[in-house]
Amino acid sequence: MFTIDTIPFGIFTVKNRRKKVATIIGSQVVDIAALANLGYFKDLKIPKSVFTKEYLNEFIALGKNKTNAVRTRLQEVLAQPQQLPTSVFYNETDVQLHLPVKIGDYTDFYSSEQHATNVGMMFRDPANALLPNWKHLPVAYHGRASSIAVSGTNFHRPKGQLCPDESQPPFFSPTKRLDIELEMATVIGKSNSLGESVDVNEAEEYIFGFQLFNDWSARDIQKWEYVPLGPFLAKNFFSSVSPWVIPIKALAPFKVPVAPQTPTVLPYLQEENRHLFDVELEVYLQTAAGTETKICHSNFKNLYWSVSQQIAHHTVNGCNLNVGDLLASGTISGKEPESFGSLLELTWGGKNPILLPDGTERRFLEDYDTIIIRGYAEKDGIRVDFGEVRNTVLPAV
Amino acid sequence: MFTIDTIPFGIFTVKNRRKKVATIIGSQVVDIAALANLGYFKDLKIPKSVFTKEYLNEFIALGKNKTNAVRTRLQEVLAQPQQLPTSVFYNETDVQLHLPVKIGDYTDFYSSEQHATNVGMMFRDPANALLPNWKHLPVAYHGRASSIAVSGTNFHRPKGQLCPDESQPPFFSPTKRLDIELEMATVIGKSNSLGESVDVNEAEEYIFGFQLFNDWSARDIQKWEYVPLGPFLAKNFFSSVSPWVIPIKALAPFKVPVAPQTPTVLPYLQEENRHLFDVELEVYLQTAAGTETKICHSNFKNLYWSVSQQIAHHTVNGCNLNVGDLLASGTISGKEPESFGSLLELTWGGKNPILLPDGTERRFLEDYDTIIIRGYAEKDGIRVDFGEVRNTVLPAV
Repeated sequence: MFTIDTIPFGIFTVKNRRKKVATIIGSQVVDIAALANLGYFKDLKIPKSVFTKEYLNEFIALGKNKTNAVRTRLQEVLAQPQQLPTSVFYNETDVQLHLPVKIGDYTDFYSSEQHATNVGMMFRDPANALLPNWKHLPVAYHGRASSIAVSGTNFHRPKGQLCPDESQPPFFSPTKRLDIELEMATVIGKSNSLGESVDVNEAEEYIFGFQLFNDWSARDIQKWEYVPLGPFLAKNFFSSVSPWVIPIKALAPFKVPVAPQTPTVLPYLQEENRHLFDVELEVYLQTAAGTETKICHSNFKNLYWSVSQQIAHHTVNGCNLNVGDLLASGTISGKEPESFGSLLELTWGGKNPILLPDGTERRFLEDYDTIIIRGYAEKDGIRVDFGEVRNTVLPAV
Repeated sequence: MFTIDTIPFGIFTVKNRRKKVATIIGSQVVDIAALANLGYFKDLKIPKSVFTKEYLNEFIALGKNKTNAVRTRLQEVLAQPQQLPTSVFYNETDVQLHLPVKIGDYTDFYSSEQHATNVGMMFRDPANALLPNWKHLPVAYHGRASSIAVSGTNFHRPKGQLCPDESQPPFFSPTKRLDIELEMATVIGKSNSLGESVDVNEAEEYIFGFQLFNDWSARDIQKWEYVPLGPFLAKNFFSSVSPWVIPIKALAPFKVPVAPQTPTVLPYLQEENRHLFDVELEVYLQTAAGTETKICHSNFKNLYWSVSQQIAHHTVNGCNLNVGDLLASGTISGKEPESFGSLLELTWGGKNPILLPDGTERRFLEDYDTIIIRGYAEKDGIRVDFGEVRNTVLPAV
């Protein structure tokens, strides 16, 4: 149920009609293009054509003055929905939601200390789980944009080279260690030019909003391929995002201060008002026959590196970000075992399987398993919903 | 000098007029959009609008039957240039060439055995220079598409974190080890759907053509950041391509068979008519005050993994390639030291500086150094030119 505090943006179709920009209130999808035609944004001087594009990018590129004005106007008119024509409303179940943003470049960070520590403990040295660079810079790598799909898209279990025992040759197989990663994606809302760096204290100006993100991963493919140049086929078979982009403005009440970083970071990463966002994140697993089981409860604030630091680091060498680029947070794991954001961590590499209510166990995902990530923020009567990203694993082709 | 055997495709403007599709013969740029308006392709049933786009993507997406028919027609009419109106020709010096392809996703491979061996000898174990996975799969990682620019674009020396001595904290500095990588880029000409793999023996159907590629690299930034997720800021500050895309059809006479691979690769990587392309590649360094000095002479055939194998591997997990995606080869180093494709290898990590004719030395690049990569194939009176990619290093901002 999306409240008036949320007012996210997305792209929808009804039957086979053209794609349009929408928001959602409760479970009612609101046709923003229709509202624009009815003159509701006339004084805001926004070209109506931005609401009938295939993606949000042109709307986002108008800049936050304009997009926030649209948001405020929507909050005004949706406070009295009975005064709106019923033709602008659609039941959520009657529309199709699409990938809302045309993603240019996609970057995946690795910004949760607990996640990096867990991985380091399992695969490297428990006594020195974090690598030497980890607390000095927000580690990241480039990911694949083409295979990012919206919630509801299902995908086939990927195949590839596995080599569990490197004294033997690799073999070809569907992955046996299919995993998820609970992440948040940042949608870039403002471009910087090639050669220009973004100041860490101005970086939030470059954020349009956030989506839930599932960084599906094939752990066995990853193990064999990733040295020395990083993950490739273990990740690029599929990633998924929730359909509604939550504007950063909606999260203003949910800023939480965080402790200074130790060791002190280099000046270009030092924030004046360092904060994260208090957003509850949950992961549910549903088997083909079973019901939903919550397997993880984490929070967007479980990051060591803020999104502002990610943006400052990404551009410090002059790399240009464009409107519509996606920065994923990396797996968001908290300190408590139930907040670990991947099966790899939840089952500690498969050693401690998750027992499901139907009596079955999961180390990694089985065919026809469905994963649902949900998110929300709630405080002082204000609630912001992120909706969900839901996908089902189909058998290998 | 581009011959009639080349007939590449590019995007040009004259003065401030709109972008159009062009080819080049000798040093005469040919306005293909104007030829289309004059009816030269009328019987080929090609929408004229594809020739007045900002990028080649829509032209390429027509498919090879159409694009090869245009190529053949151009060869016919350019064989008798005096029969064409002079208004379709422009001197190369009177036009501006642009990034020809809107790059969706960019992938960088690591497919030269000698390059991987050199790097392994320098940074790991000389006795076991190649990592265990290297001969089983074409190692690759995702790169940054937004910062790929066309020849002639200059860039500022990137800044970032350096940590040459990990017993000390990192510091912030312009890179002191700015390098190049001599590569060839493959332009994808046909899309596969998410979940669909491309057969290695059909993979060339997915190649539109090739460009020269310079994968500029900051070795000191790379050393500190790249474990465990691969290169990031060390690469994404800038990459560059030559302006003309050479259709794969032009390279048909230059296929050269290569020896079978040992150990035998998995079936999805086994090619029936395994071949590479015999294209000479040269790198020139020009200092601010000096003349061009050839510092490397390599060949596109110096690859262990063919582009077909790269495509089969990239898609074996169902990853979808799109028209306009770029696959770079990785540094193309041959066996002879003068064929090493980076300064890192040519100077062996800076130990053996290159002596330039003006008496100066180079370990890595200095401000105002210009790097020019050129390529050509020549055999039995047939010559195919790749032109050049030329960029100058400007001082750090």
